[in-house]
Amino acid sequence: MAHPITPLSPPLKDELDIVIPTIRNLDFLEMWRPFLQPYHLIIVQDGDPTKVIKVPDGFDYELYNRNDVNRVLGPKASCISFKDSACRCFGFLVSKKKYIFTIDDDCFVAKDPSGKEINALAQHIQNLLTPSTPLFFNTLYDPYRDGADFVRGYPFSLREGVSTAISHGLWLNIPDYDAPTQLVKPRERNTRYVDAVMTIPKGTLFPMCGMNLAFDRELIGPAMYFGLMGDGQPIGRYDDMWAGWCAKVICDHLSLGVKTGLPYIWHSKASNPFVNLKKEYKGIYWQEEIIPFFQSIILSKECTTVQQCYVELSKNVKEKLGSVDPYFQKLGDAMVTWIEAWEELNRPKEASAAAEPKSVKKEEASPKSK
Amino acid sequence: MAHPITPLSPPLKDELDIVIPTIRNLDFLEMWRPFLQPYHLIIVQDGDPTKVIKVPDGFDYELYNRNDVNRVLGPKASCISFKDSACRCFGFLVSKKKYIFTIDDDCFVAKDPSGKEINALAQHIQNLLTPSTPLFFNTLYDPYRDGADFVRGYPFSLREGVSTAISHGLWLNIPDYDAPTQLVKPRERNTRYVDAVMTIPKGTLFPMCGMNLAFDRELIGPAMYFGLMGDGQPIGRYDDMWAGWCAKVICDHLSLGVKTGLPYIWHSKASNPFVNLKKEYKGIYWQEEIIPFFQSIILSKECTTVQQCYVELSKNVKEKLGSVDPYFQKLGDAMVTWIEAWEELNRPKEASAAAEPKSVKKEEASPKSK
Repeated sequence: MAHPITPLSPPLKDELDIVIPTIRNLDFLEMWRPFLQPYHLIIVQDGDPTKVIKVPDGFDYELYNRNDVNRVLGPKASCISFKDSACRCFGFLVSKKKYIFTIDDDCFVAKDPSGKEINALAQHIQNLLTPSTPLFFNTLYDPYRDGADFVRGYPFSLREGVSTAISHGLWLNIPDYDAPTQLVKPRERNTRYVDAVMTIPKGTLFPMCGMNLAFDRELIGPAMYFGLMGDGQPIGRYDDMWAGWCAKVICDHLSLGVKTGLPYIWHSKASNPFVNLKKEYKGIYWQEEIIPFFQSIILSKECTTVQQCYVELSKNVKEKLGSVDPYFQKLGDAMVTWIEAWEELNRPKEASAAAEPKSVKKEEASPKSK
Repeated sequence: MAHPITPLSPPLKDELDIVIPTIRNLDFLEMWRPFLQPYHLIIVQDGDPTKVIKVPDGFDYELYNRNDVNRVLGPKASCISFKDSACRCFGFLVSKKKYIFTIDDDCFVAKDPSGKEINALAQHIQNLLTPSTPLFFNTLYDPYRDGADFVRGYPFSLREGVSTAISHGLWLNIPDYDAPTQLVKPRERNTRYVDAVMTIPKGTLFPMCGMNLAFDRELIGPAMYFGLMGDGQPIGRYDDMWAGWCAKVICDHLSLGVKTGLPYIWHSKASNPFVNLKKEYKGIYWQEEIIPFFQSIILSKECTTVQQCYVELSKNVKEKLGSVDPYFQKLGDAMVTWIEAWEELNRPKEASAAAEPKSVKKEEASPKSK
């Protein structure tokens, strides 16, 4: 047999955007250059918009600061958080690609146990392009991986799987702990490389971390709203959790899959646990009511699109979590604003060609785009 | 700090039985000697009862052949399969210990990636003695393991976990595939060592393999019935699957945990796929109706013991699967017989001291016990 033809370009090069929220120069990209340089970056600059963020030469990017967010979204900009990595979801909104990979600027290239550098994006793409198996558990993990399959007793009717919407990657070195755990275990490091990708079963919630995450924007994009966090809000560090709970409930309803496991990135530095505690403490007790809320929610059969699901979810949030704290009324409203913004910026092509008053034009959106 | 005191005896030495179903001499135990010799074995001899099974010197064991099964159980022996590894559950019945480890005689000691021999039993004990987390997914796998914990966003109220009832171990080399997969992928070997233990979430079924399995007999023993398989039955190789589906549904109802992952054993030899196909083919289409049955079953609140759950389950099996094939009527009856046998042989101590007409006496039960 002939050797397979070497691909001429990196996988999904023209179908994937990399979204990076940041407040600093993106020197961390130097280490990622071999893997990420072929892709387009969307940089969401948080904090002071007058600060100049340096991007290493050779990367193709567009950059949005707070002024850009306000200009693009007008009054709807209120749904985008400020001074919190939740602002990253603005990048999901303005992307025109099918896939998103989002990564934090304190995440570096990890090595597998053989010492080889891990191409995290390639693994995410692999995860997204192969099906998920949320309806039954496979004990040998991802059955679509080389050298693996479905084990004895796995129903044959379920072996086609479902489309994968989300690929959740993990972290070596600094684990993604909450402030109390950081305080109790200041020296704990994650050194265990678990060579597995698995589907999170239907009906099971999980803590989605935004540090190293990829998703199919066409399948689940509108559910990837990172909420109201940070400046002017009573809570922080629950942005990705919120998106994860909402997205998982919607994936379950629409029969989409969520995978977790590989790829690992190297998380370099623990954030300050005292600062984190201040941001998190309301979330720590609110989530005791939020989790049962999400575990018990049943979306109506009429909801057949992510947008419809999300709007119905926002109503439930206001109705059932509104009594926990007035914050959830505001969040419910912001969820609707987010969907309105999504629909405005992501109209079907025929429609948007005729009327695109606030859609992003790259040159206009950011003077720093390259 | 002083070093911890070295334990004087292997963990759970007097609280755990090892159950081995077999038709041949147990030479495979030689390789297991360093890990298993301190423990008591219950050998269930399948097939011809006149055949003499040799057990390597130095092992403490009791051995039951079909004549012993008939003598101990009388008419209730009909619930114990013949010429199928399903007969192993007789060992679960006659054990008086809190924990069971069961292993097949074609399973050998595996090595971890560093080349170290894996003490499978020690890992199973570790799995059983630490809690499970079926109510929420932890992305860093077993949070009770050294170097791991619950990640950010994991509700604090769920961090105590629940008691672990079942520890399901995996297999390197020959994976546990069904006959069609064996036929399609005759050369596939499992070479991937996944360094993880995880809880199977509540509400999720899994294919439980009996090859390398441990459980807490007091918590879940009566649900570990391996059904009617083999000689005189229309199906084989679904014994462990049946037990797994029943046990998982009952664990979910009673808030008990099921773990899967480590430890690995080395599975030496694939069984004949043609023979397997003959045994399995009815199961392959029956399971398409069995799985939805187990996925939809809701046990009533009045069922607070495993026995009560199991009897209620047996009624559901007869009622809802009886139309699939008359076999399930027979199986439902056998499930009840099994529970009757369990209660007869496992009466509370005060009661059984007064009336123990058919309980096992080691010397009497097996002339080959040592």
